[in-house]
Amino acid sequence: MADLLIKNGRIITMNGMMIDRGVVIVDKGLITFVGKDSLEKADKVIDAKGCAVMPGLINAHTHLAMTLFRGFADDLAYDEWTKKIQAAEMNLTPEDVRAGAYLGVLEMIKSGTTAFADMYIHMDEVAKVVEETGMRAALGYGMIEGMNEDSETKLRSRERFSKQWKGAANGRITTMYAPHSAASCSKEFLEKVKQLAAKDKSRIHIHVLETQDELLWMKKKYGMCSINLLKSMEFLGPDVLAAHCVWLSDGDIDILENRKVNVVHCPSSNMALGAGIAPVPKMLEKGINVALGTDGAASGGNLDMWKEMRMASYLHKLKDPRTMPALKVIEMATVNGARAVGIDAGVLRPGCLADIIIVEMKKPQFTSSNLVSALVLGAGGCDVRTTIANGKILMEDNKVLAFDEKKIIEEARTAMSNFD
Amino acid sequence: MADLLIKNGRIITMNGMMIDRGVVIVDKGLITFVGKDSLEKADKVIDAKGCAVMPGLINAHTHLAMTLFRGFADDLAYDEWTKKIQAAEMNLTPEDVRAGAYLGVLEMIKSGTTAFADMYIHMDEVAKVVEETGMRAALGYGMIEGMNEDSETKLRSRERFSKQWKGAANGRITTMYAPHSAASCSKEFLEKVKQLAAKDKSRIHIHVLETQDELLWMKKKYGMCSINLLKSMEFLGPDVLAAHCVWLSDGDIDILENRKVNVVHCPSSNMALGAGIAPVPKMLEKGINVALGTDGAASGGNLDMWKEMRMASYLHKLKDPRTMPALKVIEMATVNGARAVGIDAGVLRPGCLADIIIVEMKKPQFTSSNLVSALVLGAGGCDVRTTIANGKILMEDNKVLAFDEKKIIEEARTAMSNFD
Repeated sequence: MADLLIKNGRIITMNGMMIDRGVVIVDKGLITFVGKDSLEKADKVIDAKGCAVMPGLINAHTHLAMTLFRGFADDLAYDEWTKKIQAAEMNLTPEDVRAGAYLGVLEMIKSGTTAFADMYIHMDEVAKVVEETGMRAALGYGMIEGMNEDSETKLRSRERFSKQWKGAANGRITTMYAPHSAASCSKEFLEKVKQLAAKDKSRIHIHVLETQDELLWMKKKYGMCSINLLKSMEFLGPDVLAAHCVWLSDGDIDILENRKVNVVHCPSSNMALGAGIAPVPKMLEKGINVALGTDGAASGGNLDMWKEMRMASYLHKLKDPRTMPALKVIEMATVNGARAVGIDAGVLRPGCLADIIIVEMKKPQFTSSNLVSALVLGAGGCDVRTTIANGKILMEDNKVLAFDEKKIIEEARTAMSNFD
Repeated sequence: MADLLIKNGRIITMNGMMIDRGVVIVDKGLITFVGKDSLEKADKVIDAKGCAVMPGLINAHTHLAMTLFRGFADDLAYDEWTKKIQAAEMNLTPEDVRAGAYLGVLEMIKSGTTAFADMYIHMDEVAKVVEETGMRAALGYGMIEGMNEDSETKLRSRERFSKQWKGAANGRITTMYAPHSAASCSKEFLEKVKQLAAKDKSRIHIHVLETQDELLWMKKKYGMCSINLLKSMEFLGPDVLAAHCVWLSDGDIDILENRKVNVVHCPSSNMALGAGIAPVPKMLEKGINVALGTDGAASGGNLDMWKEMRMASYLHKLKDPRTMPALKVIEMATVNGARAVGIDAGVLRPGCLADIIIVEMKKPQFTSSNLVSALVLGAGGCDVRTTIANGKILMEDNKVLAFDEKKIIEEARTAMSNFD
């Protein structure tokens, strides 16, 4: 007797298969069967008739609690935006971060995201929220050198966070070291981070060349860009999650390829802040693992990965419509995301983590010759009917089961009102 | 006793006001009251608690029945796309267009669009669909010279269409003359169109400088671009709806301003086909009336005007984040759209047409310091709960009342299967 059986849906395995009226079986948090028929029975059966069944989406770069700053710094140039946000962040309490993280997890569950990579402050609160809600996350405690504590204290407290939470919540939490960027941390500091991460067998989550200003500043300070500096330090590798990567030369792309770095594309945020267009088609062509992220809601607007997929598609088609076919875009949000954060998810295949979503397809905008492109161009968070993480149903038929949705929205509103 | 009273919602009048827990009253297809309290009673009362109440969205440029070609020509360069679509269009029957138009109207009702400007073929079918469904539309029978009939026959048949449908469906239908573009119709033909439109007191709907190829072709043929040619013919005026306007020089923008031409921005389609970025912020700054359209679903993906608003915002912020504040973007989809198609709608004000939507706001992504930007960046069609056109409720609490949704999707699927 398995825990859960999903039947009658159109299964998009993200593993090369589309199965009409297929069956997915889940037991003890893992997928145990994906196929046409099975004699296996389960405690809980979900009828997914008229729906797509697919892997949960993976938001590979966000600052979760920034949901509190949604709409707070709109229509500003990058520098002005940063100034306003950083001033407000100085006043963030752990309680605020808890409220913002809960709101973020609610948004993700409702829009079909089952795992995310976060870097922010007061991360113990975020970890508790992940533990309580049933989400999956790769958590990194952000580090900007010279802010709040001295460098040594900072490193020790991040080491403590990493050890305390690694593998917590039944393995749903993994930890990363999260130095903000090569521009905001010294070379010496980054070297120590790399050593700590290696010792802990932790990954590293870092912003890389988001803006042209970073590029120019690095060239002025080091005579080379962030990628080349990090390469010279042997910092880059398959354990690195490099967010943004907008201002890359062809040489930088070669380095990312050679070092097998994971890149996270955040098109909405890059557009909203005027950061620029990351050369994603070129990176994908080279075989670089490019995942997708919303960034924080203060720039990305919200945590809807469907919107992010759509943006990724349109933004690069602007230059060449032949690029970014829909399936490639969904891969970024699933398979590539899983690889980027180092979890065995993003595909529906026996043995994988049971992170699964069910999307309602009996809607006019999905009446299409191409189901996958209709999803990428037309789906929104609200088309997701059921969200399952680690084999547990967090939302069923649009009803969040994991916690009280109304209470979370109210608490976030209260926390938010301090920053208006 | 009025027909309809909407209470307790947050009213976004698009007329400079936000009214918390306000009242909107509708009688005989018109708005009769917008404000805080009223003693008036109504046959039907809608409680919009937790919702935004705002004008219905106006899709100012589409080819409605192209919903049938959704996903049919993805990932192609503009020329290849055009070739594939035009070949399929040769085989479109009136019955196909009817099925596609119904699917389109269904999408619009469900996503909060209450009026649209269409140009396509077999337009009598589209007009019947508009009549039957309760939608509002400005309909133009497309004209490409040399295709199907000779020019004189074409003009006579379009004149017949215009006269037959103008003011039909209780005034919900207006008609336009719809020559495809200055590149696909001769100067002589366009002159005759202009005369007919003037005689009929009809508006004109035309594609203008969508692609660089059109610009280069016009320069080669006429020694000037489409805008300058149309200006030289006294073709341009406030009765003209010019779709796309991507490849404009500053001089072209001045002409559009002087002649008070209405422009329709279609960002999704322009991105998907690699057409380019229309200089919208510059046009808005000059006071040009820029509306918003989805274009056909074969390039725009679907008819969701929320997506279009979001694209318009992000696309131009890419160049300068200080541009395109959310309120300006909603204006494009409401006030400007109404002005562009020549109807007294797009604002909630006594005397205006009762085209109103109610949007569910008790969702995590709308927990924001800025309600309007949360809508623009986060709303999708599925957040629209109730859609009212001409005072009649077409959808209430997500349930389409106007016709059988399931049947429409099935009929569209059948028609679509001919083109797979």
